[in-house]
Amino acid sequence: MPVHEITMEELVSLCKTRGIIYAGSEIYGGLANTWDYGPIGVELLRNVKKAFWDFFVYGREDIVGLDSSILLNPKVWEASGHIASFTDPLMDCKKCKARYRADKLIEEAGDARPEGWAGEKTDKSAIVAFVKEKKITCPSCKACDWTEPKQFNLMFRTHQGVTEESSAEIFMRPETAQGIFVNFVNAQRTSRKKLPFGIAQIGKAFRNEITPGNFIFRTREFEQMEIEYFFDPEKSQWEELFQNWKKAVWDFVTKELGIGETHLRMRDHEKDELSHYSKGTTDIEYEFPFGWGELCAAAAYRTDYDLTQHQKTSGESLEYRDEESGRKFIPHVIEPSLGANRLVLAILLDAYTNETLKDGTTRNVMRFSPKIAPIKVAVFPLMKKDGLDAKAREVVRSLRSIGRVDYDEAGSIGKRYRRHDEVGTPACITIDYDSLKDKTVTVRDRDTMEQERVNIADLPAHLRGKYHFD
Amino acid sequence: MPVHEITMEELVSLCKTRGIIYAGSEIYGGLANTWDYGPIGVELLRNVKKAFWDFFVYGREDIVGLDSSILLNPKVWEASGHIASFTDPLMDCKKCKARYRADKLIEEAGDARPEGWAGEKTDKSAIVAFVKEKKITCPSCKACDWTEPKQFNLMFRTHQGVTEESSAEIFMRPETAQGIFVNFVNAQRTSRKKLPFGIAQIGKAFRNEITPGNFIFRTREFEQMEIEYFFDPEKSQWEELFQNWKKAVWDFVTKELGIGETHLRMRDHEKDELSHYSKGTTDIEYEFPFGWGELCAAAAYRTDYDLTQHQKTSGESLEYRDEESGRKFIPHVIEPSLGANRLVLAILLDAYTNETLKDGTTRNVMRFSPKIAPIKVAVFPLMKKDGLDAKAREVVRSLRSIGRVDYDEAGSIGKRYRRHDEVGTPACITIDYDSLKDKTVTVRDRDTMEQERVNIADLPAHLRGKYHFD
Repeated sequence: MPVHEITMEELVSLCKTRGIIYAGSEIYGGLANTWDYGPIGVELLRNVKKAFWDFFVYGREDIVGLDSSILLNPKVWEASGHIASFTDPLMDCKKCKARYRADKLIEEAGDARPEGWAGEKTDKSAIVAFVKEKKITCPSCKACDWTEPKQFNLMFRTHQGVTEESSAEIFMRPETAQGIFVNFVNAQRTSRKKLPFGIAQIGKAFRNEITPGNFIFRTREFEQMEIEYFFDPEKSQWEELFQNWKKAVWDFVTKELGIGETHLRMRDHEKDELSHYSKGTTDIEYEFPFGWGELCAAAAYRTDYDLTQHQKTSGESLEYRDEESGRKFIPHVIEPSLGANRLVLAILLDAYTNETLKDGTTRNVMRFSPKIAPIKVAVFPLMKKDGLDAKAREVVRSLRSIGRVDYDEAGSIGKRYRRHDEVGTPACITIDYDSLKDKTVTVRDRDTMEQERVNIADLPAHLRGKYHFD
Repeated sequence: MPVHEITMEELVSLCKTRGIIYAGSEIYGGLANTWDYGPIGVELLRNVKKAFWDFFVYGREDIVGLDSSILLNPKVWEASGHIASFTDPLMDCKKCKARYRADKLIEEAGDARPEGWAGEKTDKSAIVAFVKEKKITCPSCKACDWTEPKQFNLMFRTHQGVTEESSAEIFMRPETAQGIFVNFVNAQRTSRKKLPFGIAQIGKAFRNEITPGNFIFRTREFEQMEIEYFFDPEKSQWEELFQNWKKAVWDFVTKELGIGETHLRMRDHEKDELSHYSKGTTDIEYEFPFGWGELCAAAAYRTDYDLTQHQKTSGESLEYRDEESGRKFIPHVIEPSLGANRLVLAILLDAYTNETLKDGTTRNVMRFSPKIAPIKVAVFPLMKKDGLDAKAREVVRSLRSIGRVDYDEAGSIGKRYRRHDEVGTPACITIDYDSLKDKTVTVRDRDTMEQERVNIADLPAHLRGKYHFD
């Protein structure tokens, strides 16, 4: 039995027809693996980001927000190590000139793996030795004549200012985290937060991936949601904070986003997967149709590596002063890091259901949690006349503060139900002739398909109470 | 008398100390005119974007949202004309090699202007002729020996994929509008909207400006909020739609964002400022400390230019079919275009007040409208003990759905009031010993400084009713 009721191919097609996600620049034949979010998809993505901010920034006393630039001084990437080592090993086929990522060559060649295998994170020299030893052939021309591997940096480069000299070369950020580190002192001082506390940021990041793919799982342009949680290693046990973060992110994914636990698991990184400065990283993985894959990093303990690097490179003190003891030190940090687009993919897969009703017909429902549902409520006039349409619009206006509430007058009521099941609208309201007399309406629930009569005046409280949209 | 109670210089400094906006990459000496939003500023920016989406997308039946990629197929920019003509004329001083934007040379040289002057939008050959005729000298070395002007494209270039050949050259989008045009057919079909209707998008755009400046007024990286409103020119009068859009954007700026009308005006573009395809554009201008400047474009009538260009270049039909008559045609479009950062600048200038109280002391207040205020409510325990702190945290939790609600226990109540006046928090709540007995709290209003006792149970409804945060 397949893991999900829908294949990736079917999902891509469904996303297009329902206005969720379209291929980017589609009328021009696309642009390798870019995706645009349509009228329904944009709301999913917004709701994921809103849920993150509500839960972590507004929901806690110890997190503040930040929004740093995509374009940063290139010294930021020198300090962080991205210029030197944010690279993939590429090998060219000498015969046909095709270029491949060495680790992908191994994966696609068969089941054998070099020692210490950890996918793209495997030690690069081990990968290269293995490709040569196993005589892996070129997928394009079947030759076995590879160049020495070349390290290819994944950052997009551009130039700022009116000259294209190398002095003006800058990078599009490959992660939002460094924008937090370089603002640590400003954000801490102006918010007057004491350790432990965190800084959260949501924003676009760019990686010139050699092999993006699997729809919105891995794209060159994506949206990150990251938190750097700073603490005093003499006052806090990192193991305890680490456990707390694993739990907080798990709760966010399951309770706030409503992703079921069936296809989720925690995975602690093996020692040889960790960066040299990291003492521990735990991912949350999701079972995608193409296998288990990283959904997000629930917690990564980065020690004081980043702030120390920035202090050294910038010459500016990034120390924190403990008020009680007067002790100055560089805080340590635990980082939860989530990708909004990848979460949308898991939410879509998880929400999709196709059920057979008692009468033998089938219906297709996206069971989004109300917090994530793109359209919160749809309001239908039974007919487009006799004031039913005006009344329906009045009801829409009265529900406006809930979020996106749609007015829909096209087709039979049954058709409208189906249409809203297909984009996961939790509740549909019908205004009929009785509504004009007794000021009640029919509220139909997406999941149970049960209907109840509710007073128009009670609708906002009734719907908020039942569905918890916020 | 100066226009505002604060100069630009003072505002930049205030923004830093209050955690609103910091210089980007500051610890590395910055990166020319990039700005990062701190814990208070990020909320301002988010609230401006939320207000836009609430008002135009959720608040109307005829607008749907979209979120397209920053990286688009380069043919998009070929079709839109950006590759050919999104340029500034640059002149180099032959003596000292300094490079200047020709129109800026004129502005800085004195009050004389060439015929048909429209700032950066002035006809480029007219600018160049004028510089030569008036013998304008180099601001750096005072020589008067200019090269012929060179057209410099304002788009940031980068390369996608593993080779740096020109075939892989792509651009960072200089506007969000084109991402809407290329998705017109997909968005229209999947949302089943009929003309007239609009598509809205919020997102980052990048322009390699020669002379960014005036704080966040003009930056190389900025956030746009645009709507393309499509209509059938045979069924709708463009003049009428145009007037409606001018009014809608004016209402948004004044009522939703709360920018006072004192420093606002509408300005219709002169004929020679208009693009060749445009039949009319009206800006809303704001009186900044450095003079009147464009705050946003309330409406630009772009005819069917963009869709026609994309249809020609892509070979894909971008026509709309009128259901009643079966007539097929390319819709016309009116575009309101706003920049979130520039709106934040106007909001900050407008909100700043320094007032002398009856007792002769002064206080500084940011009079943000509640919808825009970064912190909606602050809750203070009178003391950090006897359960007052726990009660205060309980109140914070009960108000969570309002937005950012802060718990603040540091310093005297008077100090806490001042601190929250300075970041524009509309209401402050104090939990005292009576609160534990009679379950009431003191609510203090930022603007009137009046205090009232309110039942804890009534707080959410009381605050929402009084301040209209949504």
